Amino acid sequence: MKRRVAIVVASRANYGRIKSVMRAVSNHPDLELILIVGASALLSRFGTAVNVIERDGFTVNARVYSIVEGENLTTMAKSTGLGIIELATLFENLKPHIVVTVADRFETMATAIAAAYMNIPVAHSQGGEITGSIDESVRHAITKLSHHHYVTTEKSRDRVLRLGEPEDRVYLTGCPALDVIADIDLSLPPDFFRVGGGVGAEVVSSQPYAVVLQHPVTTEYGLGRKQIDETLMAVEKLGLQAVWLWPNIDAGSDDISKALRTYREHNPNSKLHFYINFGVEDYARLIKNCAVLIGNSSSGIREGAFLGVPVVNIGTRQTGRERGKNVLDVDCDADAIYRAAVAQLKHGPYLPDYLYGDGGAGVRIANLLATADLSVQKRLTY
Amino acid sequence: MKRRVAIVVASRANYGRIKSVMRAVSNHPDLELILIVGASALLSRFGTAVNVIERDGFTVNARVYSIVEGENLTTMAKSTGLGIIELATLFENLKPHIVVTVADRFETMATAIAAAYMNIPVAHSQGGEITGSIDESVRHAITKLSHHHYVTTEKSRDRVLRLGEPEDRVYLTGCPALDVIADIDLSLPPDFFRVGGGVGAEVVSSQPYAVVLQHPVTTEYGLGRKQIDETLMAVEKLGLQAVWLWPNIDAGSDDISKALRTYREHNPNSKLHFYINFGVEDYARLIKNCAVLIGNSSSGIREGAFLGVPVVNIGTRQTGRERGKNVLDVDCDADAIYRAAVAQLKHGPYLPDYLYGDGGAGVRIANLLATADLSVQKRLTY
Amino acid sequence: MKRRVAIVVASRANYGRIKSVMRAVSNHPDLELILIVGASALLSRFGTAVNVIERDGFTVNARVYSIVEGENLTTMAKSTGLGIIELATLFENLKPHIVVTVADRFETMATAIAAAYMNIPVAHSQGGEITGSIDESVRHAITKLSHHHYVTTEKSRDRVLRLGEPEDRVYLTGCPALDVIADIDLSLPPDFFRVGGGVGAEVVSSQPYAVVLQHPVTTEYGLGRKQIDETLMAVEKLGLQAVWLWPNIDAGSDDISKALRTYREHNPNSKLHFYINFGVEDYARLIKNCAVLIGNSSSGIREGAFLGVPVVNIGTRQTGRERGKNVLDVDCDADAIYRAAVAQLKHGPYLPDYLYGDGGAGVRIANLLATADLSVQKRLTY
Amino acid sequence: MKRRVAIVVASRANYGRIKSVMRAVSNHPDLELILIVGASALLSRFGTAVNVIERDGFTVNARVYSIVEGENLTTMAKSTGLGIIELATLFENLKPHIVVTVADRFETMATAIAAAYMNIPVAHSQGGEITGSIDESVRHAITKLSHHHYVTTEKSRDRVLRLGEPEDRVYLTGCPALDVIADIDLSLPPDFFRVGGGVGAEVVSSQPYAVVLQHPVTTEYGLGRKQIDETLMAVEKLGLQAVWLWPNIDAGSDDISKALRTYREHNPNSKLHFYINFGVEDYARLIKNCAVLIGNSSSGIREGAFLGVPVVNIGTRQTGRERGKNVLDVDCDADAIYRAAVAQLKHGPYLPDYLYGDGGAGVRIANLLATADLSVQKRLTY
Repeated sequence: MKRRVAIVVASRANYGRIKSVMRAVSNHPDLELILIVGASALLSRFGTAVNVIERDGFTVNARVYSIVEGENLTTMAKSTGLGIIELATLFENLKPHIVVTVADRFETMATAIAAAYMNIPVAHSQGGEITGSIDESVRHAITKLSHHHYVTTEKSRDRVLRLGEPEDRVYLTGCPALDVIADIDLSLPPDFFRVGGGVGAEVVSSQPYAVVLQHPVTTEYGLGRKQIDETLMAVEKLGLQAVWLWPNIDAGSDDISKALRTYREHNPNSKLHFYINFGVEDYARLIKNCAVLIGNSSSGIREGAFLGVPVVNIGTRQTGRERGKNVLDVDCDADAIYRAAVAQLKHGPYLPDYLYGDGGAGVRIANLLATADLSVQKRLTY
Repeated sequence: MKRRVAIVVASRANYGRIKSVMRAVSNHPDLELILIVGASALLSRFGTAVNVIERDGFTVNARVYSIVEGENLTTMAKSTGLGIIELATLFENLKPHIVVTVADRFETMATAIAAAYMNIPVAHSQGGEITGSIDESVRHAITKLSHHHYVTTEKSRDRVLRLGEPEDRVYLTGCPALDVIADIDLSLPPDFFRVGGGVGAEVVSSQPYAVVLQHPVTTEYGLGRKQIDETLMAVEKLGLQAVWLWPNIDAGSDDISKALRTYREHNPNSKLHFYINFGVEDYARLIKNCAVLIGNSSSGIREGAFLGVPVVNIGTRQTGRERGKNVLDVDCDADAIYRAAVAQLKHGPYLPDYLYGDGGAGVRIANLLATADLSVQKRLTY
Repeated sequence: MKRRVAIVVASRANYGRIKSVMRAVSNHPDLELILIVGASALLSRFGTAVNVIERDGFTVNARVYSIVEGENLTTMAKSTGLGIIELATLFENLKPHIVVTVADRFETMATAIAAAYMNIPVAHSQGGEITGSIDESVRHAITKLSHHHYVTTEKSRDRVLRLGEPEDRVYLTGCPALDVIADIDLSLPPDFFRVGGGVGAEVVSSQPYAVVLQHPVTTEYGLGRKQIDETLMAVEKLGLQAVWLWPNIDAGSDDISKALRTYREHNPNSKLHFYINFGVEDYARLIKNCAVLIGNSSSGIREGAFLGVPVVNIGTRQTGRERGKNVLDVDCDADAIYRAAVAQLKHGPYLPDYLYGDGGAGVRIANLLATADLSVQKRLTY
Repeated sequence: MKRRVAIVVASRANYGRIKSVMRAVSNHPDLELILIVGASALLSRFGTAVNVIERDGFTVNARVYSIVEGENLTTMAKSTGLGIIELATLFENLKPHIVVTVADRFETMATAIAAAYMNIPVAHSQGGEITGSIDESVRHAITKLSHHHYVTTEKSRDRVLRLGEPEDRVYLTGCPALDVIADIDLSLPPDFFRVGGGVGAEVVSSQPYAVVLQHPVTTEYGLGRKQIDETLMAVEKLGLQAVWLWPNIDAGSDDISKALRTYREHNPNSKLHFYINFGVEDYARLIKNCAVLIGNSSSGIREGAFLGVPVVNIGTRQTGRERGKNVLDVDCDADAIYRAAVAQLKHGPYLPDYLYGDGGAGVRIANLLATADLSVQKRLTY
């Protein structure tokens, strides 16, 4: 019998981070992929990632709506709870031998808790990294609930070990997000922006453009409106055409969305174009070819290093994360953002930096899953 | 305005571990106690702890039924999820400034997750200890979600620090469970067993008696029936009158309950008497005066050290936990249990050992809560 | 493609009421059975009906734990809510064309609501009957949510029509519960009581025995203890050996269970034997051969009429339900119960009465399901 | 002690329908208002009705997020389930003597089920009406779960009686929605549209304008996009400036929202202005002064009759509902909508019609609540 590997995909970002593992598990002779898609990956406001997943050829074993609407701190907690309830029933019926959970989001936590309580070994990718937001607490808590750790950097590996995890269960695989973009043609097709949908000013692909992606910082809940306004001012002053991406579903994203909608209403002639979403590969093309990537997404640091993208990283959301030379860190202040963006425009593209992986993580992880020890009793080793 | 401290009591065991903190918070001029009682603390099968809490003079601010019935691994997960959903709504409406969560159970996890996502600082008691069962993973995961740590031993303090928590947020307070029993008269009233309820053979308080308390080991789910049968054989062979306590609500307790009920049916003349529950103080009297305490409850190790109780600790549930000389560890094997029990009967009571605290934890913790820094952004310090 | 018929079995009683439909659906060339087992049908306290279902040869498509523990009014409501959440996800993934829901319990309501909101036509069995308890409200509410009605009596049919349901969607099929017992050998094997399990006095199958089955009346919540005590007194005075069955999971069953357990402790020499559960067929044998059936179960009225069982029906739970001559109705009063039981013992067995059906309901219902109009917009016809 | 009356407000529409009852309960010497605000009444996408409620001077006793995001059939069911779970806990802790539930939405159903199972009498307003959509089934199911009925028309009273409800519990009170607008100045302030927010073309209050409000029809799920496109075409052809209101949260609203957003993007110069929401009074002013109200909202029929508004009612959502002369019914077809709208423009305002009430419902209902029999056992009377 093949080993049944359940992977829970809960958001567009999730999918990019695990797609190559899904592929490698599907292709592995000893593994069977059990694919559960839920949370914001089902929601049209976030681009209905499930449709992309199916178009990519994956069969979805179960769909589960688990987001309690509100986009505030209370509903983040409640969505975690609802996710656990639903995933427990699905695990009960789909009977995976091992469950893979990705990074540090509330859906990730729900997956880890459901599986851990059900004595199903948990394999966690991207543990040991350091950032801000509630993700920081959640990531390390998941490490303590997980049985196998597939980390992206040497330092992350060291941190997971210092958290007391046993050496024979911590593997430096690199980040699967990089696999997807390692082998593809990253040039921008001429009609790239025309077929991409979205609303706002036309983006001319032959001209320099900025990309902006700024998520809420949950531990600074209530400040989101002010934070996004600073960035809007900076980008406006920059004068560049800009591709602005919608934030994720974390608490506070509602404030950001409202700020963006208000801005659009009052600035009908701005050079901004708003997109909900890009596929993983197109997102890589988008940032590979941009003049500067502004915001607080981890993709600037992770994929950005690999692709050599000039990045302006704002605020505390990524504080502590290892980064390459391509990142300029600034406070959440219009003037600081503007000046850093100008500096990056002047600098231009960076050399690639393989800090977060070399593009072969998916196959490595599938091989590890195929042979992972399935015992579940953990014990702190110090 | 007083600082509002929410304490979630979720089981009879929970209550004993936090009662002195509740008292000290109530009495503190700068604190207001917000008391939420839920999970098995509301259920009559587990002795309706909420009634005891009210008889002790506490006002319950909210009750919440959150146990999904089944007592298996799936329902443990689901109860965690339901608990999070419910607690989030209660926190939204009761607006605590800080939340206290106790030890390592699934209700503890639910409390920690709800509060952490809602940017309410989490104060965790009994972190850094080592045991078996899923509690071991959960305890350290809660540490990583918590903002303040009130630990019981030097070694626990060291472990919480090694897990990356900042030194100024980790305090060695001792275990509040010991406060409750530090100052009371621990002699056994002559009618102790007559008023205690329960079913089975009469227990004569003037004669030596054993106490048995054996919980399921969630990570060995499915073996509970066999494990309890070994203990039943050993106790029968011992020939002593015995006070047998019902297990907690963890996955597998159903198997244990069934084994006990079957035993009763087939052994109507056994010397066992079954009790659901004792109050915290009476439980201390019960074990202080017993000839031997057999099972896998942490109370044998924690309260047992303080009271000098001869303990036979069975199996892996407490593996790794610091213990005093009063504990003999054995495998889950009838013969081994029997022999260790005989040895303890021969030895008799031990000298008190203040390994887990000196009886002043509650006041210490209340004082810490009154001044605790309420900022919530955590960051791994290595 | 076969029409996919989802049947949700939620309790031991449910199963008896729908088993013949399940069989007929399985055997029908145009239908595919989607079997979901949940609620108390999964719980060992209620005899783990799911095991019986599987032994009977049915394949369970999904299991779902949905009972919030507490057995009070609050948890009945919450279990309904949790059932809806879970069933919605299962319907989303299992994609039935039509859903069958049985009678009037909270799990039945959960099924009807989930399906109705999801535009899946609901087929309801046993509508239009009249009783007490919350079941009475729930049954008619389900009728108003349902699209097809399979009723058991002429009067029920008339009532469903008066509730405004269209004539071409209301069918008098008889009760499927009777199908199962129509063709089997109903004599009691000599070792019947020995293999049946349970606890208490030995029941001698060659001697007359009473059967007692008394459920809580949810709309008289809080009176359960007193009500069961009256029955206990009456049965004790009767002096007959008695087979006592455990109550269902409705609010108040906890009070009844406690009363029964207490009685057992204080009356170790009583002639009562307590069983959790019998299979559908064995339950028919049990009551067919009893001297008198005492309690408030609908089985006394329904199966009792078909089998000619002398019944003493207590209190308001079945008030309004059509009944045959085999039923004597009494208030919940020890003396009244005793006197009616004596009268029934004197009378002995009754002639069969086909008031609730002739044993062919299952096949009739399967045929109706195969051709039922699947449109979902309802409209009150007056 | 005052009788505690719980009112659950779950949406902006709900609030308009119950506000005068809330006021009358607050003012009644024998009643205490327990106000629970949940579901879409908390969501900013739907205008955060809770803020309006608080500005109107009401104290909110509890807030509860209970919408599972997705706006499809599955999530409507799941939101009902989550609502039941949450409301049960709130009722447990807030202990109302009677609960008021409004009309026919899924939140209404959640309220009725939670209260009915908890033996709390349910008072239902707006029963006995006839419409399309799932609301039609749900409304009559709620009638069968409710103990007191406050209906709006003679025919509704007759239908509730025919559904088997006892005569002494069915009262013709009129609709509370009309109370709020009975005594206010309904003229349009000159700056009405300037302070109202929203996005799109400026609306000139001195010029004729249309109002459009079209909700999804849940039982025609999947057709929403086509249906809204027909209306968009008709309104465009009409050439009038138009105030377009966002749909409610029912399954399918997501499709409608997307269609509206797409239209806006492609028709930047259209004469449409989009508003999320108006307060109850301002909504009355808005439609009182409009040239024509187009859509499928019950407000066209109910408030529209009272205010004499020319209404074009589209499709099946209101089929069967009693209406005055002010309503022209059309199929969901651009041409039919256009022609009916032209006819209404030609006709102009209608005379008031008190079909749904005279403006005194709130006080009548409060008086009934103060003396309502609190017994809960229902029994079908035929």
